[in-house]
Amino acid sequence: MDFKAYYANQQKLVENYLKNRIAKKGISKVDEAMEYSLMAGGKRIRPILLMAAAEAVGSKGYNYLPVACGLEMIHTYSLIHDDLPCMDDDDYRRGRLTNHKVFGEAMAVLAGDGLLTLAFEVMLEQKNVDPKVLIETVREMAMCAGNFGMVGGQGLDLEFEGKKITPEELRKLHAGKTGALFIAAIRGGAHLAGANDQQLLALTKFADLLGLAFQITDDILDVEGTEEELGKPVGSDAKNHKSTYVTLYGLQAAHELAEKTVAEALECLEMFGENAEPLREITRLMTDRKK
Amino acid sequence: MDFKAYYANQQKLVENYLKNRIAKKGISKVDEAMEYSLMAGGKRIRPILLMAAAEAVGSKGYNYLPVACGLEMIHTYSLIHDDLPCMDDDDYRRGRLTNHKVFGEAMAVLAGDGLLTLAFEVMLEQKNVDPKVLIETVREMAMCAGNFGMVGGQGLDLEFEGKKITPEELRKLHAGKTGALFIAAIRGGAHLAGANDQQLLALTKFADLLGLAFQITDDILDVEGTEEELGKPVGSDAKNHKSTYVTLYGLQAAHELAEKTVAEALECLEMFGENAEPLREITRLMTDRKK
Repeated sequence: MDFKAYYANQQKLVENYLKNRIAKKGISKVDEAMEYSLMAGGKRIRPILLMAAAEAVGSKGYNYLPVACGLEMIHTYSLIHDDLPCMDDDDYRRGRLTNHKVFGEAMAVLAGDGLLTLAFEVMLEQKNVDPKVLIETVREMAMCAGNFGMVGGQGLDLEFEGKKITPEELRKLHAGKTGALFIAAIRGGAHLAGANDQQLLALTKFADLLGLAFQITDDILDVEGTEEELGKPVGSDAKNHKSTYVTLYGLQAAHELAEKTVAEALECLEMFGENAEPLREITRLMTDRKK
Repeated sequence: MDFKAYYANQQKLVENYLKNRIAKKGISKVDEAMEYSLMAGGKRIRPILLMAAAEAVGSKGYNYLPVACGLEMIHTYSLIHDDLPCMDDDDYRRGRLTNHKVFGEAMAVLAGDGLLTLAFEVMLEQKNVDPKVLIETVREMAMCAGNFGMVGGQGLDLEFEGKKITPEELRKLHAGKTGALFIAAIRGGAHLAGANDQQLLALTKFADLLGLAFQITDDILDVEGTEEELGKPVGSDAKNHKSTYVTLYGLQAAHELAEKTVAEALECLEMFGENAEPLREITRLMTDRKK
């Protein structure tokens, strides 16, 4: 398959959907702050993963744009709140001023709240899916986004600040902070597309390993990469004295762990044959970002 | 009816449901911060309104505790974020330290995010309702809670800060900030209980007028009331130079407007007969708080 063309096409579908949906105005200027961050580009990896998981099960990904784009809104709100002065206090993201730098802190809090709320509204606009399946899917999205998943990982990040942590704690932290939304994306797409239990199990394992491989790659890039690849200053995690897979295992072992994890992730996709080609390519994209 | 006993019973149902649901732990200590604010008491007026609306339509309110309690979580998250230093910067709420005063700002942001997310998870746990009706109800809850409703009202609050505003702008501000969740509660309960279009229309109008009457009463109490009735220092809105129904209309006219609005609200309930008795009593409770 021509993966570059495929990815560009999926990205365009997501951009268009988000653009049209965010154009429906609310009653205040929180709109502007929401749109600023939502339409700031980015790889749109989570909605594209959701669509690719649906394709692995034999459906068309674009059928599930509302749920996919709701997930992107959850991701975006988490970035806005993460950048706040009381959290990571970042002035820039992807080369642009962060939300609170442009709109002020209070507006940035509301923009995040507004996007998280809109995410659920948009997901529940999904048509052509068995209502019971939609309820179960969106409920699971909430679970992955909350204190059982992403919010929980961010909470652990605060708890672990300045502490020496174990590999198990690091795994738990990232499983929540970044892994949970990958699981939400992949299980969500599979669920919506009518995956059976065996398929769902394989894709859940795949999602878990993909999240791990993604994080190890991120930690390696923090040492070896360029700012362009990282989207943040090189070595910023190390500078912030955060534990990473590189600080815990060393660079060589981190490389080996990443490769092993990617191989295991790809194994989970075997039963899906050709249909899983997009998921395989996205896995390579996410874990070999120097290419 | 013995309204005091009725209300105490409904309150107990809500407290128990919230207590049991929040006891299901996540992966981080954000739990503690979420629980601190969620279990801080309060009148639980929104979930009780939702249940009373279901009763007006002839159903039992306790059937809808998951959706009702999800709404209370949305209300609670909004209070936590509202109290943040970058928002209203309040140190106390209902006589207890605010969330960020106890857990720090970063944790308070996450506690709010966690509760908003959990709200949707819990609402989607609702059983014994037609899945299509549940989807439509929860979608509408999100609309009322977002930039079309509550978040939008908070945005307008920021926009209007220090400005002289018109009565229309004041109405729009409060319709979003407090009115939208009353509409969510009342329409939600009605919808879940299978209200027909005529009933839904009447209850929507009732909810809108109830929100208005509640706000005018609040503004009058800000001038005439005691701290106990208000849950905040007397005259704090006036001190913050906020426009209120009293500053815009004068005290006498505000009283008259409140009475007229309550009468109109109660008229909307006529078609429901005896079944609307809880809604009538709650209306009196909310708009005659000096009794």
